[in-house]
Amino acid sequence: MNVIERYWAVIEARDWPGLAGLLTADVVYELPQTRERIRGREAYLRFNAEYPGDWHLRVERIHVDPGGGASWTAFTVGDETVPALTFFRLDGTGRIAHITDFWPEPYDPPPGREHLVERY
Amino acid sequence: MNVIERYWAVIEARDWPGLAGLLTADVVYELPQTRERIRGREAYLRFNAEYPGDWHLRVERIHVDPGGGASWTAFTVGDETVPALTFFRLDGTGRIAHITDFWPEPYDPPPGREHLVERY
Repeated sequence: MNVIERYWAVIEARDWPGLAGLLTADVVYELPQTRERIRGREAYLRFNAEYPGDWHLRVERIHVDPGGGASWTAFTVGDETVPALTFFRLDGTGRIAHITDFWPEPYDPPPGREHLVERY
Repeated sequence: MNVIERYWAVIEARDWPGLAGLLTADVVYELPQTRERIRGREAYLRFNAEYPGDWHLRVERIHVDPGGGASWTAFTVGDETVPALTFFRLDGTGRIAHITDFWPEPYDPPPGREHLVERY
């Protein structure tokens, strides 16, 4: 498994020591949509451990190159499943140094492109 | 430049023949948030050529591996800049066969994590 595959496996397993081993001590986690930032491994582990709800995740896509990577996961809580898009930067040892998470929500399509588009 | 770097360069340049050369004939483009789908290179080129507004894009991140990749771009129209997250699948010749686009919007942070989070 590459580091992003391991990251999602330990999070789904609530394996917080396992997650700690993948992160740099000064890892930064950012949510651009809310402009929230969490600094440091301890705070980020707590954020994950305290996150409410009986959520489960499924990996849709992972792409990794030497400097980092990106994933598309699907998070399910009860009957609802939502996508999460995450971008990672790795340090020189392959640990995760920076995480950026996006949580896109449904919206209505704008008019004017019905001649090109089908709905699914 | 890798294929995703070329993709964004030709789109920013409105180089539609250049874009055509990067795509398979039966490329599929999907927007999960609106559940819109566009099938085929001709329709997808038209969708791009007809897209309204004097938009410009900047690449924030690109990660590519043999099967595909992901990008984070920032689109600016006038005073507004919004992120776009895009996942790509490539065919065996390196052409883009499938594109999935996400356009996340700002939202208010949920309560309960103020002890871990700073705002930026």
